[in-house]
Amino acid sequence: MPLWLLLASLSPAQLAGLVDFRYLADALTPDEAVGLLERALDGRAERIAALCRDGYPAYSTAPGWLGYSDELLAALCDEAVRDGFRQVKVKVGASVTDDKRGLAIARETVGPDIGIAIDANQVWDVPTAVGWVRELAQFQPAWIEEPTSPEDILGTAAIRRAVAPVRVASGEHVANRVLFKQLLQAQAIDVMQIDACRVAGVNENIANLLLAAKFGVPAYPHAGGVGLCEIVQHLSMFDYVAVSGTPRMIEWIDHLHEHFEVPAVVSRGYYVAPETPGASTPMRPESVAEYTYPDGAAWRG
Amino acid sequence: MPLWLLLASLSPAQLAGLVDFRYLADALTPDEAVGLLERALDGRAERIAALCRDGYPAYSTAPGWLGYSDELLAALCDEAVRDGFRQVKVKVGASVTDDKRGLAIARETVGPDIGIAIDANQVWDVPTAVGWVRELAQFQPAWIEEPTSPEDILGTAAIRRAVAPVRVASGEHVANRVLFKQLLQAQAIDVMQIDACRVAGVNENIANLLLAAKFGVPAYPHAGGVGLCEIVQHLSMFDYVAVSGTPRMIEWIDHLHEHFEVPAVVSRGYYVAPETPGASTPMRPESVAEYTYPDGAAWRG
Repeated sequence: MPLWLLLASLSPAQLAGLVDFRYLADALTPDEAVGLLERALDGRAERIAALCRDGYPAYSTAPGWLGYSDELLAALCDEAVRDGFRQVKVKVGASVTDDKRGLAIARETVGPDIGIAIDANQVWDVPTAVGWVRELAQFQPAWIEEPTSPEDILGTAAIRRAVAPVRVASGEHVANRVLFKQLLQAQAIDVMQIDACRVAGVNENIANLLLAAKFGVPAYPHAGGVGLCEIVQHLSMFDYVAVSGTPRMIEWIDHLHEHFEVPAVVSRGYYVAPETPGASTPMRPESVAEYTYPDGAAWRG
Repeated sequence: MPLWLLLASLSPAQLAGLVDFRYLADALTPDEAVGLLERALDGRAERIAALCRDGYPAYSTAPGWLGYSDELLAALCDEAVRDGFRQVKVKVGASVTDDKRGLAIARETVGPDIGIAIDANQVWDVPTAVGWVRELAQFQPAWIEEPTSPEDILGTAAIRRAVAPVRVASGEHVANRVLFKQLLQAQAIDVMQIDACRVAGVNENIANLLLAAKFGVPAYPHAGGVGLCEIVQHLSMFDYVAVSGTPRMIEWIDHLHEHFEVPAVVSRGYYVAPETPGASTPMRPESVAEYTYPDGAAWRG
């Protein structure tokens, strides 16, 4: 059974039993977690069927890397829309002039109905983030991601208050549930970005998804790195079926999937629900052999 | 020149130049740091002389480890007082009944004028910490240390509000200046415990000391582990001479100092100011040889 379906087949008590609640008592108790999961029991079967039929929404981070030419940005935005994505993401933070020109091009290309998330990758301190994001708010970004240090809960909260209604996202570098708990308690984020490999595995990600549900904040996962799309799709699909009941969007970059035995598949802007047993983690033996340090062919010569 | 004196010989601008201010702008700017250091210029020479003459106050963590018998606890408390320490520290958190009995013994032994700090080593969640510390407040602890996760800024702040007037200390497991900044912004701690080896070296500890000075919170360092007393004494002495202007207390455990070429020396409850060049870090070659894994004598047989 694929991991997402395995998790979505467990009872609320079994799922709560997977979570280490240490340090969470002031935000989420085991009983509250069971209650949240019980309320999501209704409709589980229908959501499993919907996932298998329709897949899970994706957004594309292909278009907007720093240093792309205006022409390449426009071409990739256009391609993303034609491929069926309803949201793209572009990097910002190196030059406010370049960011404005790029976002104008992206907005003109994708039109008013496609989301454009922006991602600063922790480049700003708090006052710089506030000023910069206000400059970019005219392009109606879907969110500003990692506007400052991912550990700066109070700073992220201050930025969120100052740049509203622009939504704030963070999480790909948040190390554990104690920090996520505080981001939620401090109302620092509108979008919680879980990462499949940053925290202590599946169990801590279940804790994080339960915290997000408790605080009513949607979990849009980080993906794109080697294997991250493969693994995190299971967590998001589980979240949809058994926790939040609502599909969000999983990040997608069409890059390095060829090294995995069962690569994630995105079609017309939707992740196809995996059917293979496990968490889609195994890499192809040929790839492992080629890239094993220091004897693999990729490291020689 | 010993590290503490080397640092205390630099100008305010030179010292501020050692600090990475990234992510600190909402709490401490370079100009503010220079201003703090300039105000501490007055009396530097006198404090250097006082340090060389009198040393720097220490407190002893020898007495109160979990599992010690009541007799051993009393004997070690008595010894600490006779050795000239003005504060001892005991571990708490395994059993509230044992903690009360132990603290009663400690208080009876040291009398009303010697501080007794208590240390929970992160064992509690927020509500447990609040209830437990309130039970122990009758023994007038000098502070409660690490009442919960060191990353739980909001939780530590909630504990501090709830257990006042008991003071809250934390920091030995605080990974960087961004977390310290928030502990101070959130008014989560009364005592900031820098650690010589947890953060990114001397430079980040200077940032932490400057943050403590900005927020008016005293820095009592964590020590006791292998080499920590040796190294952190330099940072505290620098803090006294050139930053805060006020001596605090450095933790002391008389343990494993024999492996260092220039061991820290505590006499009559005071660290003796080191005179040897450097940061007191070199270990004796015999110790390195004996404990080097896997060929050292300590690992064989």
